[in-house]
Amino acid sequence: MNIAIYGYGNLGKGVEVAIKNASDMILIGVFTRRNPESVKTLTGAPVYSANSLKDFSSKIDVLIVCGGSATDLPVLTPELAKNFNVIDSFDTHKTIPEHFAKVDAAAKSTKHVALISAGWDPGMFSIARLYANAILPNGSDYTFWGKGISQGHSDAIRRIDGVLDARQYTVPVESALESVRNGENPTLTTRQKHLRECYVVAKDGADLNKIETQIKTMPNYFADYDTTVNFISQEELIKNHSGMPHGGSVIRTGSTGLEDENSCLIEYSLKLGSNPEFTASVIVAYARAVYKMYKNKNYGAKTVFDVAPIDLIDGDYIDVISKLL
Amino acid sequence: MNIAIYGYGNLGKGVEVAIKNASDMILIGVFTRRNPESVKTLTGAPVYSANSLKDFSSKIDVLIVCGGSATDLPVLTPELAKNFNVIDSFDTHKTIPEHFAKVDAAAKSTKHVALISAGWDPGMFSIARLYANAILPNGSDYTFWGKGISQGHSDAIRRIDGVLDARQYTVPVESALESVRNGENPTLTTRQKHLRECYVVAKDGADLNKIETQIKTMPNYFADYDTTVNFISQEELIKNHSGMPHGGSVIRTGSTGLEDENSCLIEYSLKLGSNPEFTASVIVAYARAVYKMYKNKNYGAKTVFDVAPIDLIDGDYIDVISKLL
Repeated sequence: MNIAIYGYGNLGKGVEVAIKNASDMILIGVFTRRNPESVKTLTGAPVYSANSLKDFSSKIDVLIVCGGSATDLPVLTPELAKNFNVIDSFDTHKTIPEHFAKVDAAAKSTKHVALISAGWDPGMFSIARLYANAILPNGSDYTFWGKGISQGHSDAIRRIDGVLDARQYTVPVESALESVRNGENPTLTTRQKHLRECYVVAKDGADLNKIETQIKTMPNYFADYDTTVNFISQEELIKNHSGMPHGGSVIRTGSTGLEDENSCLIEYSLKLGSNPEFTASVIVAYARAVYKMYKNKNYGAKTVFDVAPIDLIDGDYIDVISKLL
Repeated sequence: MNIAIYGYGNLGKGVEVAIKNASDMILIGVFTRRNPESVKTLTGAPVYSANSLKDFSSKIDVLIVCGGSATDLPVLTPELAKNFNVIDSFDTHKTIPEHFAKVDAAAKSTKHVALISAGWDPGMFSIARLYANAILPNGSDYTFWGKGISQGHSDAIRRIDGVLDARQYTVPVESALESVRNGENPTLTTRQKHLRECYVVAKDGADLNKIETQIKTMPNYFADYDTTVNFISQEELIKNHSGMPHGGSVIRTGSTGLEDENSCLIEYSLKLGSNPEFTASVIVAYARAVYKMYKNKNYGAKTVFDVAPIDLIDGDYIDVISKLL
C-alpha cells in the first residue's frame, strides 16, 4: 500500500518512522507547503511541494494529513478528501461532529474514505471509553492525562510578555487516581484531577512575580488548576524538558449482579516516551484500515469506532487468532 | 432484539442479569437440559426445555450459549449455529482455530452468524493484545492474571482424596508486574509470573501433609508454581472465599523513534468482583454486534476481532462520537 505524508512537523516525522516498521507499506513521499529543498527527511524519503500533490493522485493509496487542529485540519482534511483517501488526527473534541460532517460530504462526493481523529485521545482512549461503556452500561468514566507535556499550555505561557521559552506538564493528582482505582467513585472537580507544572525561561530583567501571576490566573488554561511555576535557564530547559512524553488512563468503574453487588474496574493506560511518535504509530495502523475500507467501497468519513480490530493488522486471520485471541 | 440463553449456570445467570441493563434487548427465556421445573431464574425469566428450542427458531435473534469449553461448547456451538445466530465464550486458547472452523462451516451452511470466544480472556484481553501489536509492531507482550479464583485449579484440588472443598487464587507476582511496568522488558518463567494460593477444607482425619504434597507436585496445575496451601474450615471457606473475583493486566512494551529511543507502555487492566458476571456483560454487548452482522448478511464464524467498537453500543452514531470520541 502506498502512503504519503502531508505536513512535516513532529507528527509527520513520527509517521515517517512508523511506516518503516510496516512491511506492507511504502512511503511515496512527504508533501510540504514549505520549499521542498529546505526540508530534509529522517529516513531520506523524497520531499515534494504540496502544489504537486495532484500529480500523485493515482499513486497514493492513503494520504496522512499531519497538521494542527485549530486552523490546518478543518480546511485541509475536507479539501484533500476530495482527491485522496485520507486520515487525520483532529483532536478538538468539541467540534468533531462538525469536522466529521464536512469531511464526510467531501469524501462521499468523490468516493473516498476519510478517517478523522486517530491518535490516542481522541483515538485509543475513545475506544477504551466505548468498549467500557458497552460492557458496563451503568458506571462512571474517568480520564486522567499525564504526566506529560501539553503543547497548547506551553504555547500559552510562551505568549506572555517577558517569557523566552516554557514547557508545561499536566500531572494527574495521585490521590484522585487512587480513589478512582479503589472504586470509591468520587466526584472530582477540575482542580482535584490534575495539577499543572510549568518550567519557564524568563528574559533578563523580566518581572518574575508578574509572569507567575499571569500564568496562574490565565482563564481556561491555568486558573482552575493548582499550578506551580519554576523559573529555569534555557540550558536546563533544553537538558531536562525537551522530550515530549505523555500518557494517562481511562477508567470506568461500575458493577455487575442482580443487586449491583459486584464491583468492576476497567482501566486502559498509556506511558509514552514521545506523544507525537505514538500518535503517528496509531495513525499508521489505521491507514491500513482506511485502505481496506476503500477496497470494500465503504466510502465517507469514518472514526476509530468504525474499524474492526482485525483490520489494523497485517497477517493471515487464523494466524492472528491463534497468536492473539 | 430477542435474546435467549442456553444453559443456566453462573454464566447464564450473569447473562440474564446483564440483559436487564440492555434497553434494546428482550430475554425470551432460558433453555436448560435439566428439568425446566427444577430451574428458578433470578429475574423470573421463563425456563424451557432445551428440547423445545426448535419451536423458537423464528423468535430468537441471538442465542447465547453458556457451557463449559472442555466438552459442552465444542459440540453445542456448531450444532446450535445451524439454527440460530449464536455467541459463546469458548476459552481453550489452543483449540480456538479448530472450534472456529467447525462453527464457521455450520453457521455458513444455513446463513447464520456465530461469534466465538467472547469474554475477557479470550475477549477483551485479546483485543488489547491486538490493538497494542498493531500500534507497536516491535515490542513484548505480557499477560498477568489475578488476583482471582481459577475454577479449573479449584476443581483439581477438590478431586484429591481427603479434600472436601477448595478454592485456588491465581496471584500475579508483584515484583514481575513492577518490572514490566518499569519497562525493564524482563524474560519471565511461569514461576516468576504467578503464585498459586490454595484454601482447602480437608475431611476429618485426612493426612494434611499428603494433601499438601499432592497439590504442590501436581503437574501442569501446580508443579511449575510457588504454591501455598492453607487448610481452613468449611465455614471460613464459605465466609471468605465464596466470591468469584478475577482480573489481570495485558501489557505491551515497545518503543518509537528512528533509533527506538522513546519507550512506550500500553496496559489494559481489569478488576472484577465477579468473573462470570463480567464475562456475561461482554457477551451481551457482542450479542448486539452478532445481530447487526446477521442483518448485514455477514454470515459465518466471527471473533471479537471482527467487530467494530461502534457495533457494541446502542445509540445514534453522532451522539456516540460526541460523547465518547
